[in-house]
Amino acid sequence: MKVSIIGVGLIGGSFGLALKEKGLAAEIIGVGRRETSLKEALRVGAVDETTLDLKEGVSQADLVVLAAPVGSILRIGRQIVPYLKEGAILTDVGSAKEEIVRTLGGLTKNFVGVHPMAGSNESGVEKATASLFEKATCVITPTGETSKKALNVVEDLWKKVGARVVQMSPETHDFLVAITSHLPHLAASSLVSLAAKEKEKAVPLIATGFKDTTRIASSHPQLWSDIFLSNKEMVLSALKGYKEILSEWEELIRKEDKEGIRLKFGQASSWRRKNVEPFND
Amino acid sequence: MKVSIIGVGLIGGSFGLALKEKGLAAEIIGVGRRETSLKEALRVGAVDETTLDLKEGVSQADLVVLAAPVGSILRIGRQIVPYLKEGAILTDVGSAKEEIVRTLGGLTKNFVGVHPMAGSNESGVEKATASLFEKATCVITPTGETSKKALNVVEDLWKKVGARVVQMSPETHDFLVAITSHLPHLAASSLVSLAAKEKEKAVPLIATGFKDTTRIASSHPQLWSDIFLSNKEMVLSALKGYKEILSEWEELIRKEDKEGIRLKFGQASSWRRKNVEPFND
Repeated sequence: MKVSIIGVGLIGGSFGLALKEKGLAAEIIGVGRRETSLKEALRVGAVDETTLDLKEGVSQADLVVLAAPVGSILRIGRQIVPYLKEGAILTDVGSAKEEIVRTLGGLTKNFVGVHPMAGSNESGVEKATASLFEKATCVITPTGETSKKALNVVEDLWKKVGARVVQMSPETHDFLVAITSHLPHLAASSLVSLAAKEKEKAVPLIATGFKDTTRIASSHPQLWSDIFLSNKEMVLSALKGYKEILSEWEELIRKEDKEGIRLKFGQASSWRRKNVEPFND
Repeated sequence: MKVSIIGVGLIGGSFGLALKEKGLAAEIIGVGRRETSLKEALRVGAVDETTLDLKEGVSQADLVVLAAPVGSILRIGRQIVPYLKEGAILTDVGSAKEEIVRTLGGLTKNFVGVHPMAGSNESGVEKATASLFEKATCVITPTGETSKKALNVVEDLWKKVGARVVQMSPETHDFLVAITSHLPHLAASSLVSLAAKEKEKAVPLIATGFKDTTRIASSHPQLWSDIFLSNKEMVLSALKGYKEILSEWEELIRKEDKEGIRLKFGQASSWRRKNVEPFND
């Protein structure tokens, strides 16, 4: 199978390395905008050939992976569909799915929307590893229109590179990922912003709790600006729900409702111990 | 020096173990409400003797450490001051300082308020270790009334058990710790509560980002109920400031202000890289 990866950053590069390690691709073409990234992708062995030209990069491929930043996937996808050869499968790795799946799925039944949940706070092909997707959740978001054959090929590849594949609708994915990923980035960043208002004064009082809670606030700003906007409505809805829960906390603390506070904190604590701690270790 | 530790949980027990390891106490008496915890404290070697009786426990001590849950420190402190021998030093480990320092400092100039920032999401003497305070920040909150001699003794002990000691006023401590510790617990817990509303559906979409961001939501509910209420006004003020920042986020995303989003996320990201990542590793 001849594979074309458009955008050889952390995700695209790691997917290339993983496909090669597992012997799943005869040849991988890296397509990008910058010579330097493409050279680096060649150097680490994530791709076999490179090109700056989209048409040249995709026209011979059996599988084309859109691994560009989420804000560019739609534009590039629209651009390349006319260049794809008959029967070629088009897929992506964007972290919001509804708009991408609706648009690109409308252009070809061979489009399969995918969101591999890995590597959020690093970036660049120099951080790419073949093991990035091992045990990572990979969400595939087919619709009633998606080609079953294309779906099976894509699902199979992600399973073979070690991911835990789950299927759901693009809408459900976007709603849930706003809660489990996009909102936590905003929540973490906002905690840092609040501490930063106190300048250096807050620094000595920062311990591991703050450090862990805000780790993802160090994620790539440009990447995450794109992600928030790519899932705008769901992110706004998650922010609204979050602020409501914070208001419930304000009310409980204002009223000094000791039992209510213990219950609310305890319920979240129990849910986390049951559902989060055993997962993804 | 004869030391009495009231409340031999994680913090009290670890302090006992550290004092003994460093040879800083001739004898340590553990005082508690439950035979089982006291027996466990003896077994792990955190204390040499135990008693359920406060008066008996403190009347011979040169240093008394209030290591009970923060909600009980004031009550127990008031109770034991009359039993202290002449010149005995009284100190505590409570995570909010203003009320405790004002009240107990009003009863004896030999009271020194302390907040060792360690071990927030474990509890119980069975988790105690002599190394718990190594490189941990330990805030000491003297006032103009605090005995210099008592202050020096207490500061010296915490330095010797490995803590990084910083001094500030009780008010400054409570304000800053609301931002760096108490609010993050509420923020993390609220993220879990929001995900929990979706029941099992959200679980497959939980990855390391969510897991790290919410780790402290698994902290001890009773302990943290006490902490939130012990620092009520500062916690409410931190919650207010946090919700304001989240509202700024809502506004930026609603307006699709890509540059504003990138800037806001980038500023927090830079501040964290500079001030949080190098710290406490």
